[in-house]
Amino acid sequence: MALSSSNLFTRLLLQNAAPACTSIVRHLSTTRHLLHQAQQQQSAGTAEVGRLNHVAIAVPDLAKAAERYRAVLGAKVSAPQPVPEHGVTVVFVELPNTKIELLHPLGPKSPIQKFLDRNPAGGIHHVCLEVADVTRSMAALTPNGVRVLDPQPRIGAHGNPVVFLHPKDNDGVLMELEEVGSKQSTRSRAAELVDGICNGGVV
Amino acid sequence: MALSSSNLFTRLLLQNAAPACTSIVRHLSTTRHLLHQAQQQQSAGTAEVGRLNHVAIAVPDLAKAAERYRAVLGAKVSAPQPVPEHGVTVVFVELPNTKIELLHPLGPKSPIQKFLDRNPAGGIHHVCLEVADVTRSMAALTPNGVRVLDPQPRIGAHGNPVVFLHPKDNDGVLMELEEVGSKQSTRSRAAELVDGICNGGVV
Repeated sequence: MALSSSNLFTRLLLQNAAPACTSIVRHLSTTRHLLHQAQQQQSAGTAEVGRLNHVAIAVPDLAKAAERYRAVLGAKVSAPQPVPEHGVTVVFVELPNTKIELLHPLGPKSPIQKFLDRNPAGGIHHVCLEVADVTRSMAALTPNGVRVLDPQPRIGAHGNPVVFLHPKDNDGVLMELEEVGSKQSTRSRAAELVDGICNGGVV
Repeated sequence: MALSSSNLFTRLLLQNAAPACTSIVRHLSTTRHLLHQAQQQQSAGTAEVGRLNHVAIAVPDLAKAAERYRAVLGAKVSAPQPVPEHGVTVVFVELPNTKIELLHPLGPKSPIQKFLDRNPAGGIHHVCLEVADVTRSMAALTPNGVRVLDPQPRIGAHGNPVVFLHPKDNDGVLMELEEVGSKQSTRSRAAELVDGICNGGVV
């Protein structure tokens, strides 16, 4: 596919790619129409879940947990990031294909504090799957016996619309659906591909 | 990079790639040395964790759970696969970047039955991270206060050496480390890249 200089997608990739990867990145840019085509082909009437965006783990000691992931497990971890509107401080653990998010309570009304009160040692709090259109996904859930905890999508910690599924309708698992949208999903997936290729983001 | 007909890695990719993706696959094949280089550069003295291989969910009704993931959530699910040596029947839920494994007890001594006795609705049983050398990873854990439940690696449900970390040393999370090895990890990662490119494995 010929590339135009106004191709934002391609420019984004080229900005993030090592020179040696330029040709790979140019080929990756040709996947946009395939990705959008795939979105159109997804089964009608389902929530159309995509990538596992993250696994969220509630931890009683954020510094200790972050240091374990960095120095013992050998993963790349971020600095702690307070998200007061959601009552959490988050450390992102970057894995080659997804993220683990370490959550610690921030403020007295933190939902994570309630979880830690029941699970003092910590534990997996939820998993998050990406969707292209969370409202469309919601329409496929309730009629099929999967209750959504949020009557309307709300803005999640990443700034995207999210809803949570009722654990009792989902094998006891609290599942978040995050609307990353087709463009953002394409960019994040492409960036992941570039990272995997250029930086050897594999065991 | 010139490709030789004896290049098994490249042949594997080409066998799995749509024709339109051949040039991309040829570029992907050039990443092998980058991936191996990255492995060599990983921090010494850590468990060197890599990809999230899967999230394992214990479910009380395997058929019902599999149908929910297929028909309601819209994911690709496998047929149930009995793994008697591990006391489980597994349904694989394929996501674009990783897997969810739905586990149901098989036989009277299934560890999943014990989990369901404590959690009748089901729940997340463990997460599995890939490593290149599980014995090397073990050597980085115990001295740093993370106990390994298995004195020696055992063969896991995928036929690879695995160990499990003590949840009390890991924020209450049962974590499996699976040795996929550098070649298998490279192949699986490359196959994932090809799938993402050729099949639009993105929301």
